[in-house]
Parts: sequence; C-alpha cells; structure tokens
Amino acid sequence: MSNGSPALATALAYFEAWTGGDFDRAMTFVADDIVCQAPAGRLEGADAFRGFMGPFSRIVTRSELVASFGDDTKAVLIYDTDTIPVKDAPGAECHTVVDGKITHIRIIFDREPFTEARRAAAARAGG
Amino acid sequence: MSNGSPALATALAYFEAWTGGDFDRAMTFVADDIVCQAPAGRLEGADAFRGFMGPFSRIVTRSELVASFGDDTKAVLIYDTDTIPVKDAPGAECHTVVDGKITHIRIIFDREPFTEARRAAAARAGG
Repeated sequence: MSNGSPALATALAYFEAWTGGDFDRAMTFVADDIVCQAPAGRLEGADAFRGFMGPFSRIVTRSELVASFGDDTKAVLIYDTDTIPVKDAPGAECHTVVDGKITHIRIIFDREPFTEARRAAAARAGG
Repeated sequence: MSNGSPALATALAYFEAWTGGDFDRAMTFVADDIVCQAPAGRLEGADAFRGFMGPFSRIVTRSELVASFGDDTKAVLIYDTDTIPVKDAPGAECHTVVDGKITHIRIIFDREPFTEARRAAAARAGG
C-alpha cells in the first residue's frame, strides 16, 4: 500500500487510526512540535492539532481513500468523507514525515458547507 | 519531474499551462468528456470545465507546486496560489488520465475566503 515510501506508511497509519475511531493512536504518529496549515490558519504543536482534528474525527461517519502517494519524506492523501453535518466532504493532506512522526501537515478542504450547516442549525434553534 | 508516471506528466503539463497564463494550451490536455468534481458540484464536459477553471486561472497572481505524485493513470497535485481576491489559497487536484487526456479531476479548495471576499466587495459597492 505504501509502495516503499516510509512517509506514506506513517501517513496511512495515521489516517487509518483516526478514520477508524482511534484518535489517540493517530496522535502517536504526530510530532510534538507539528505545524499544521489548515484552512482557518496555522496551528502549532500537538495539543493545538488535537484540538482541531479530534472533534472532526468524531463527526465522520464514512471515509474513503481516493489517492495516496509518497516518497522518503513527503506523503499526500486525498480522501472523501461523510460527516454528521455535511455529506461528501473531501479533503487533501500533504504530510512531511521525519523518523516516523508527522512534523507538518497542510490540510485542504472546503469550509463553506460546514459554515452553512452551522448557520442552518443556529437558525432552526432560534426559530 | 514526473518520475516515469505518464499521468503525472500530463497533469504537470496541464498545471504549467494554466498557471503560466495559457489556458487554451491547458485545455489541450483535457478530454472532451471530462468529469470534474468541484466544491460546488459536478461539471460534465470540456465546456463546463472551461467555464469553471478559465475564470479562476485569470485571477491567479502566483502559483507554487507543493507536491506532485502519480502512477500509470492517476496523478495528484497540491499547490498554493495567490489570487486577486484571496491570498494564500491552496488547492488539491486528483487527475485520472487516459491516453494523455485528463478524463476526471477532483478539485479540493476552500470556497469560504472567496465567498467572504465577494460579500465584502458587494458591501463596499453598496455602501
């Protein structure tokens, strides 16, 4: 599956853990000083990263890997998810991996349907 | 650059053409019956695809490839762009390539800052 890429092996182990509901195991592949470039901005350190990805992992109801590639230090994952508020929410991640730990992740996804779902829920709660 | 992946060679030629300002050349790598899964939904056919990506290509002021991988039929590109309305707008694409033509693209990016920029411009125009 990882085609001899050590970075991809780590990225896939991380992905399989969090999409499988074991976020604590996923965090064992994350460096303490991880830097994450997410749509809302830059997150520094494992605690900030956990605060972002942990809640997301708990609303995912389906996940499917669309593509995965890697080399010695870099891996890319493209995946689709269904979540409780939004169906068909794809994501892309580019990982840098050093000594089996993810030191940098760039995450790309569309925040717009999540914002719309929050607004619709707030409108229902208020109406 | 394409590491022996014919799909990646086509994806990179497409990317270099559109980010270099030659969208007509980019379209020579696109199949007539391309299917594109974009954040706003599914686009079918080269004309619909051109109507989506052409305008985007004209607002890009800087582009930088972050990662690119591929195999026989699939390629992924992760890139960052600056655009006229939004700085630091990364994107991810997963291409399927058949006989040198891109038959399927899944594009992932965050629509939210573009929507916000449009709203801000409309508010300025109205105020």
